[in-house]
Amino acid sequence: MATHKSPGLQTNMDVDYVISYRFTGSDKAKATAQFEKLVHELASVGLATEVRDGVNHSVLIFVKVASEKHLFGEVYRSRVKDWIHGVRPAAPQKEARAALEEEPLHEAERLRIIYQLITNPEEEGGAGITPKEGEWKSVESIFPLHDHEYNKKWIKKWSTRYMLTTEDLDEIRERLGSKIAFYFAFTQSYFSFLVLPAIFGFTAWFLLGSFSPIYAFLASLWCIVFTEYWKHQEVDLSVRWGSRNVSTIETKRKDFGHEKEVKDPVTGEMVRIFPSTKRLQRQLLQLPFALTSASVLGALIATCFSIEVFISEVYDGPLKSYLVFLPTIILTVCMPVLTGVLNSLANRLTEFENYETKGGYERALTQKLFIVNFITSYLPILLTAFVYVPFGSLIVPHLDVFGLTVQPFAENEKQLKTPDTPAQFTINPDRLRKQVIYFTVTAQVVNLCVEIIVPYLKRKGFAKVKKMQSARAVRSGGAVPDVSENDPPEEASFLHRVRQEAELDTYDVTNDLREMVLQFGYLSLFSVVWPLAPVSFLINDWVELRADALKICVEMQRPIPSRADTIGPWLDSLSFLTWFGSITTAAIVYLFSNGGLGPGGKPQDIQTWALLLTIFLYEHTFLVVRWAVRLALSKLESPGKQKEKRERYIIRKRYFDENLSEIHRLPPMSDAKTIVDRESLEEDARESSLGSSRQEDRFWARQKGPNETIQIGSRLIERAIDAVAREGKKSQ
Amino acid sequence: MATHKSPGLQTNMDVDYVISYRFTGSDKAKATAQFEKLVHELASVGLATEVRDGVNHSVLIFVKVASEKHLFGEVYRSRVKDWIHGVRPAAPQKEARAALEEEPLHEAERLRIIYQLITNPEEEGGAGITPKEGEWKSVESIFPLHDHEYNKKWIKKWSTRYMLTTEDLDEIRERLGSKIAFYFAFTQSYFSFLVLPAIFGFTAWFLLGSFSPIYAFLASLWCIVFTEYWKHQEVDLSVRWGSRNVSTIETKRKDFGHEKEVKDPVTGEMVRIFPSTKRLQRQLLQLPFALTSASVLGALIATCFSIEVFISEVYDGPLKSYLVFLPTIILTVCMPVLTGVLNSLANRLTEFENYETKGGYERALTQKLFIVNFITSYLPILLTAFVYVPFGSLIVPHLDVFGLTVQPFAENEKQLKTPDTPAQFTINPDRLRKQVIYFTVTAQVVNLCVEIIVPYLKRKGFAKVKKMQSARAVRSGGAVPDVSENDPPEEASFLHRVRQEAELDTYDVTNDLREMVLQFGYLSLFSVVWPLAPVSFLINDWVELRADALKICVEMQRPIPSRADTIGPWLDSLSFLTWFGSITTAAIVYLFSNGGLGPGGKPQDIQTWALLLTIFLYEHTFLVVRWAVRLALSKLESPGKQKEKRERYIIRKRYFDENLSEIHRLPPMSDAKTIVDRESLEEDARESSLGSSRQEDRFWARQKGPNETIQIGSRLIERAIDAVAREGKKSQ
Repeated sequence: MATHKSPGLQTNMDVDYVISYRFTGSDKAKATAQFEKLVHELASVGLATEVRDGVNHSVLIFVKVASEKHLFGEVYRSRVKDWIHGVRPAAPQKEARAALEEEPLHEAERLRIIYQLITNPEEEGGAGITPKEGEWKSVESIFPLHDHEYNKKWIKKWSTRYMLTTEDLDEIRERLGSKIAFYFAFTQSYFSFLVLPAIFGFTAWFLLGSFSPIYAFLASLWCIVFTEYWKHQEVDLSVRWGSRNVSTIETKRKDFGHEKEVKDPVTGEMVRIFPSTKRLQRQLLQLPFALTSASVLGALIATCFSIEVFISEVYDGPLKSYLVFLPTIILTVCMPVLTGVLNSLANRLTEFENYETKGGYERALTQKLFIVNFITSYLPILLTAFVYVPFGSLIVPHLDVFGLTVQPFAENEKQLKTPDTPAQFTINPDRLRKQVIYFTVTAQVVNLCVEIIVPYLKRKGFAKVKKMQSARAVRSGGAVPDVSENDPPEEASFLHRVRQEAELDTYDVTNDLREMVLQFGYLSLFSVVWPLAPVSFLINDWVELRADALKICVEMQRPIPSRADTIGPWLDSLSFLTWFGSITTAAIVYLFSNGGLGPGGKPQDIQTWALLLTIFLYEHTFLVVRWAVRLALSKLESPGKQKEKRERYIIRKRYFDENLSEIHRLPPMSDAKTIVDRESLEEDARESSLGSSRQEDRFWARQKGPNETIQIGSRLIERAIDAVAREGKKSQ
Repeated sequence: MATHKSPGLQTNMDVDYVISYRFTGSDKAKATAQFEKLVHELASVGLATEVRDGVNHSVLIFVKVASEKHLFGEVYRSRVKDWIHGVRPAAPQKEARAALEEEPLHEAERLRIIYQLITNPEEEGGAGITPKEGEWKSVESIFPLHDHEYNKKWIKKWSTRYMLTTEDLDEIRERLGSKIAFYFAFTQSYFSFLVLPAIFGFTAWFLLGSFSPIYAFLASLWCIVFTEYWKHQEVDLSVRWGSRNVSTIETKRKDFGHEKEVKDPVTGEMVRIFPSTKRLQRQLLQLPFALTSASVLGALIATCFSIEVFISEVYDGPLKSYLVFLPTIILTVCMPVLTGVLNSLANRLTEFENYETKGGYERALTQKLFIVNFITSYLPILLTAFVYVPFGSLIVPHLDVFGLTVQPFAENEKQLKTPDTPAQFTINPDRLRKQVIYFTVTAQVVNLCVEIIVPYLKRKGFAKVKKMQSARAVRSGGAVPDVSENDPPEEASFLHRVRQEAELDTYDVTNDLREMVLQFGYLSLFSVVWPLAPVSFLINDWVELRADALKICVEMQRPIPSRADTIGPWLDSLSFLTWFGSITTAAIVYLFSNGGLGPGGKPQDIQTWALLLTIFLYEHTFLVVRWAVRLALSKLESPGKQKEKRERYIIRKRYFDENLSEIHRLPPMSDAKTIVDRESLEEDARESSLGSSRQEDRFWARQKGPNETIQIGSRLIERAIDAVAREGKKSQ
């Protein structure tokens, strides 16, 4: 942000997208031929281009829409397509111009449509340019330019406000698309909800201490209400943002392999399909994947945990204060390797499951990654709470083997000697609390710093290195001419910043969402250990929301807007964590009910049946409460669903008025009264009916019209009442 | 069915409905005035009437539609209304006549619409005649006439077939309405599914005996698959029968008390509302209701159970073989009284909850009645399995108190003496199995007989009594003249049968559904005790399906068709029973794992932790499997949902073709290519742009059209590759 006053930040030169084209190797002809094709493809969909030098073997192609009028046609078509597929309940106005005036085109929609124009396959009317894929490997990135003026205002506004309003979220949706807006909406909802557990967490910490059943129940209840509330909120927001059911028109994956082509039973078009039964079979592979992940990561974490326990609580030799970091180092080295392997395995597995759409692929991948994340995030605390604390004194004596790791440092065998009898060893009862504090405070702060400060330093560092390199090159006389040398002076500062933006990372909202969901997990699973956790989260999330905005503005390329109607599979993760929380919370509350000390390594102190009964009762209370909360929430009208119903009603009404107006000309049944009455007049007809051959006609001809029915009926009634009266008298 | 050859059964005289008007008291003027009003009201909505004598102070009013043409208008309006409210995805044809030809009017729709015409309030275009309510207390019943020819064929067809097809169900829907069709569809699905557990139940019984964990798992799995399958089947059927979302246009309750009138946010009409938050508060009263029911019924059942145990296993005096029936007698006497009280309490509670629609009221009432049914059906077995068997020898010694009940019969104190030590007493391990057999075989058969044979005998008996009475009356000379005396001879047999049908009960499908769901409960909860239960159910249900058809044809008035898109709250009961079954099954399998003998009254033989762990693991396996089954089923395309999607697509498409065709005139973006290319021609414009005051214009004017971009870009690429090559050479 150092160059804020730079004139290059004041205008985007009407550029819609910048394409960074990188040529590798030295084959000039190939590089220029591909470049030529790229520009022709862009021109073929009505995009004007300008080219400038880029850094590191690349040129930058600036793209803008050649004709706004033609773009409007594209926008209108996209909106009609949305409606046909049920994304919007109401059809756009009949007249394209009127439709655009009624619903103005906002930036995110514009950028999304242009991006589709660039990347969609040619048969769908796009240029078919897929960055980093297949033929277009040399297209390194396609990105819109930041609106620095706006960004500056945005950050300033947010940093001086406590709460974000729905209008703030609407603004994000209009500039960055509903997918990113959903992340901010979720985090904002979560943040506002956090005020409650922060209050009763603080009160509980002050009055009740840790492991309070009252706090545990309130926290579980809060988790349920928040999760269920968010589900409704999602529907509301997706209706508000016109992106409901958007997943039905997701972009197809190029790699999707179809087995056969069939006629779509809905639209009648030919579609390529892959049988879902076959996919279900392939999805079963997730089971071994989950087991492998759990055992591999579990083994690593358990080993490091054991080494740590050994060093901190058994080892008594020199360098102890340094050696305790050994397991952390092992983890830091091995964990990324392992998770890397598992992630690529997850990728290949998802590839194998052969999803048709990008959305489907992402969802399936996220589900798999959640398993890995779950283990790395929560297993350490789970081990402490449910293995170390209850069984510590039984297990620690068997930790001799880990003596190997520190043997080189030990001066004698005694320093490595584990206690022979459980009695000699006492567990460290504070370990659980410390660990929870570490994960809920320290790790969160560290994360935040890593997210914001590290990329900043990295950028600064790289810039410095580059400067030094070119200085050295100049000194040695063999300088590659700086790309900016040939820039027209009035464009220099603009091009300088575009080159900087081209080097930035792309923003992936999934990572930020994952962070929030994992944080929610700590609250749901372990906050009973240390009720101040929600307070820490509350503070952290206030900063997080702003930091993420800042990150998008400064550290990342401007994201390409895309649409969403949910936070996706993370929603399932939320539900799962809430549920799992009911089990861990119950278990922790029971295990540490003796003044927070826990069974202290003596499993014989635990009444297994009482533990299981606690879990059983707590979990079922949880399920009943969740059912009640769901029921209650479903009864409340939500503005989004109402809007949807109204729009659906209006379109039917409109169709009705336009096409079914004949209905008003249809006579109501009450008009038939005249026919009923008329019958009495048609004496002749009646006579003939009585002589009719159809006994049905004779039956209906006996009484002519309602008046005769009344006459005869009254006579029947009177006679019957008389008969009863006679009978009554007789029996007296 | 004795009068099958009677000519009165061959025609319904074109009658649509028969109204039985009963006059009480001796006020002739009042009785005839109300009668007059009734006929006028009917005529006012275009219904023709004939009146005839009825039995026991009543007249029968025969009603038929005066004009078929007017009725068609009514039908068309009803279909359009369905579509406006989203019940049908596609609007009917624009032309009413064409619409009726495309979708012919079937009997159930006709009768439903005429019934609405009679009963709907006047402001909605009906005659406002509500039988047995308010002003129309004297209208005893409104019923259509049986089609005896058809019924005969129906029963004959069903009784010679093993399986029912979807077409059979369609036929029911067309004649009796989708609500009753849903009951038959459910029972048929359940029956077909039962083949599986019958097979592995029989195998398990043969090979593995009772309490087999393998059978338990298979049965639970079956319960999950069936419940989840049925949920999908419901959607399919409701789409097939055009009744999806029909609950949105339910008829309003007259007793609904509104708090305020607000404008409907969807339709813009004024609607009366009762705040749902207030209703939620009132619904909380269900909690004390459930507790009261449980404790009152529980106490009665537990007492009778204890008395039975005391008499059969402690008492040793005379008349023992008769006295064992004492608890059954107490139950038979007290249970109906108690359930009657609870049912009326449930009614009043539901009344208080103030539902807007009849459907809402029924749902809420059914939920409450399920609680009562659950306790009366399953508590006896639950007591045996989880109280008597494990704790028997601890409890039986305390049963002295029940000695009081048989003290009058005992000859000495010793006969009433309970064993002093638990060792002296051995429980009867066969009691559980016997009880399950009783509930799954004996009780089912008894029920079936009660349903079919008792009403038959009752009818025959009443007829005989009546004959005898009138014979006596004739002898004593004071005969009330028989109503049939004045019948025209050719109508005599027809009127005779109508008078018979008027005396029949009305059919309530809820009772039959409840029976099936409770049967499913025995299978889910206890069939592991006696794996032959599903075999018994399979046989029973084959008969049940036919018996119910027979019941509707012979024992009951022809039901008034109504629509439904679900079996309603019974679906929730199914899910609940499946879940609860996972808990009881696990507990039973563990408790009786020692060769089926159970803990034999010695609770010290039970490892509580092992019991709880079994339940915990089994229940969670159940939940995971259910989740997987749900996921898998949701992936499979169902014909119903597809049909719905297609119709929704078609209507949008039609609207699109009719109204949005302008879109084809909008030029695609690729047309803008000419604009991009043209730029290169407009040299002058470019020149002037370069001199323009807007730097954005100057930026875009530097390269004229794609060709120049390609030229310049290629030059940039070549230069960069050259530079690298130079650099490379230098460093060699």
